[in-house]
Amino acid sequence: MTSSPIPPVITFLSDYGHHDEFVGVCHGVIARRCPTARVIDVTHDVPSHDVRAGAILLRAALPYLPSGVHLAVVDPGVSAAGPNGRRAVALRTVEHGHVLVGPDNGLLMPAAERLAGVAEAVDIGESVERLQPVSRTFHGRDIFAPVAAALAAGEPLAAVGAPIAADQLRRMGIPTAHLAEGELTAHVLRSDTFGNLILNAANEQLLTVGAQMGEALSVLHGGTRHTAVYAATFADVTPGELLIYEDAQQMVSLAVNRGSAAKLLGADQDDELVIRPA
Amino acid sequence: MTSSPIPPVITFLSDYGHHDEFVGVCHGVIARRCPTARVIDVTHDVPSHDVRAGAILLRAALPYLPSGVHLAVVDPGVSAAGPNGRRAVALRTVEHGHVLVGPDNGLLMPAAERLAGVAEAVDIGESVERLQPVSRTFHGRDIFAPVAAALAAGEPLAAVGAPIAADQLRRMGIPTAHLAEGELTAHVLRSDTFGNLILNAANEQLLTVGAQMGEALSVLHGGTRHTAVYAATFADVTPGELLIYEDAQQMVSLAVNRGSAAKLLGADQDDELVIRPA
Amino acid sequence: MTSSPIPPVITFLSDYGHHDEFVGVCHGVIARRCPTARVIDVTHDVPSHDVRAGAILLRAALPYLPSGVHLAVVDPGVSAAGPNGRRAVALRTVEHGHVLVGPDNGLLMPAAERLAGVAEAVDIGESVERLQPVSRTFHGRDIFAPVAAALAAGEPLAAVGAPIAADQLRRMGIPTAHLAEGELTAHVLRSDTFGNLILNAANEQLLTVGAQMGEALSVLHGGTRHTAVYAATFADVTPGELLIYEDAQQMVSLAVNRGSAAKLLGADQDDELVIRPA
Repeated sequence: MTSSPIPPVITFLSDYGHHDEFVGVCHGVIARRCPTARVIDVTHDVPSHDVRAGAILLRAALPYLPSGVHLAVVDPGVSAAGPNGRRAVALRTVEHGHVLVGPDNGLLMPAAERLAGVAEAVDIGESVERLQPVSRTFHGRDIFAPVAAALAAGEPLAAVGAPIAADQLRRMGIPTAHLAEGELTAHVLRSDTFGNLILNAANEQLLTVGAQMGEALSVLHGGTRHTAVYAATFADVTPGELLIYEDAQQMVSLAVNRGSAAKLLGADQDDELVIRPA
Repeated sequence: MTSSPIPPVITFLSDYGHHDEFVGVCHGVIARRCPTARVIDVTHDVPSHDVRAGAILLRAALPYLPSGVHLAVVDPGVSAAGPNGRRAVALRTVEHGHVLVGPDNGLLMPAAERLAGVAEAVDIGESVERLQPVSRTFHGRDIFAPVAAALAAGEPLAAVGAPIAADQLRRMGIPTAHLAEGELTAHVLRSDTFGNLILNAANEQLLTVGAQMGEALSVLHGGTRHTAVYAATFADVTPGELLIYEDAQQMVSLAVNRGSAAKLLGADQDDELVIRPA
Repeated sequence: MTSSPIPPVITFLSDYGHHDEFVGVCHGVIARRCPTARVIDVTHDVPSHDVRAGAILLRAALPYLPSGVHLAVVDPGVSAAGPNGRRAVALRTVEHGHVLVGPDNGLLMPAAERLAGVAEAVDIGESVERLQPVSRTFHGRDIFAPVAAALAAGEPLAAVGAPIAADQLRRMGIPTAHLAEGELTAHVLRSDTFGNLILNAANEQLLTVGAQMGEALSVLHGGTRHTAVYAATFADVTPGELLIYEDAQQMVSLAVNRGSAAKLLGADQDDELVIRPA
């Protein structure tokens, strides 16, 4: 239908929200450096300064995004100077060669690790591509967006920053689920606004320990044993009852039909849950 | 100024909101399948699960949108299985050949009917274009977005789904206004946050029954007779007074200057109103 | 990486918000007239009807936006008819040849004045490019968007409206800061949601009167003398203390660490502040 050349893609995730001109200005900076780039806004409503929420979201979205440059900015340490300041980085993943650009505060790493880790990384804090003067607080505009645009325009990593060793990038300690002796040990990644608990376990792991649709599982949390039905939808259990289900990420979540699993369990981020057949 | 080929267009309307990555992920899925497509977000703030509000909005917006593929997702029945589950469909309108993609729950039909109805329709639930595994809850990502992208890339309807008869598509019962014996019988389409009542009557119909700017009309609702001035702006009537005016869709609405017409009349969606000269 | 021709750019700022289809419909209208244009949303969350806030925002964003057409709509007078009605205009700036499109209510002028003023202007109220019938309330869709698109498609100003003298455009009275006798006289542009007071003074002007990082300045407001530390970040002063700092626009703001400068000073928009070394 069209014979246009394929435009380079930059995806963009941040906690900037939409009430200011921040997102629009970053789009403007990108268009000035790489006018043919197409920018896809993943979301700009990451909870403010919540690096971990941004990291989990970026990791979840990446498999559905096209190859290209992925710009992510959740950056509470932006204005810290000196030894506490965080670096600004760009990196390339081992698998698929995705390029990620953002602060070196762990935000990019869960996504990179899902793609077999980091093949190459550069510090872009003094990049020739940055806008000068670099402001103290708006590195999205002054460093991250112009570097992302330069990379989308075809510049190699080496041209936009100084090489750093991949093992010096700051990791983010997100616990991982594991299987042992017929039990699945999982953790709470986060609870959403409805009190549903999103776990770090894949639905496939739940099947491995013997979950069967419509049957009960035992969920041990902090010394208390709960019973949750493995169900397809909330309506499959009675109001007030705990269920465990596969979400749209092929991960599992705990919920209470017309209630709050977070409240019922008294569970918080990173809490450990042990799941096995009841 | 430019000799670029015209990119294919996909417009996108949903109730996904902006607090999650849903919209961004659908954009990503589209860009992977049809990298040259330009995506126009109509709105993603349709009231949650309100199929009718989405249908009215899509119908109102369509005349201003370019030719192309129109993706719309307001889908409360997404996870219902079996005989209660709704189909996923793509269709082509008789006039202008617009292509609409979304759930078969009535959402697409008012827009299609304004374009003389459906020329061709396919069930895309098992489309070769869908992303597998198809999640239980996120058909926007797994079915609707990839099919819309394939159609924008030039695939014919027949290549993305199984043919279905147009008369088997689920209609939406939105009442229509009619003129008889010097009276206009209209209905409330919806009330907005200010309590203005948006009617299903065209301004032209109001003129036909003899409305004259600045003069009073009689509005009969549920046995009670009200008087409304046909006015250009709210400021043309005194505070607390009822007015009837042409909105930006060339339709008519009832309002109270600094008040709520919904409250004054006690009117609700689909209520019938009979309008004639006072 | 790509050899695409550079697409024309339209940036778009308004107070339309995202809860209606207004922004999407304007995008649609643009795509119909200029299918190759790339539209960058600067923000659509300008406070409703706040022309001045929109003007300040547009002026602040423009240096970061690519050359092209800049569409801005904050338009409380849209439906006023007759002598009180505002004109619809398009203009070209002396420097950089940016094209601005919007209501003639002052919104565009601070941005234009930063680019050495207006080289050419036209009244577009009766433009051949407008959509007819022109609605009473939605000139964004019916006048501004189609004219902006025509200009992006390469039409000259003269083809989309009737010439008007630049000195007949409505100005906006935003006060300007000035230096005299070792004092900086500045004004409050606005206060943000945290009670920070954004001033109309450049950081460079503050340095000219002798501001030194970490040292105190005297701030005279309405007969009361305050002391503010010139600091890099909020954390550099004790809670409750007043600071003055360079923001991301290279302008200066007054703030209270964990408090409200607006409340502490009792200051309001346009208030005059005299700043000098303590």
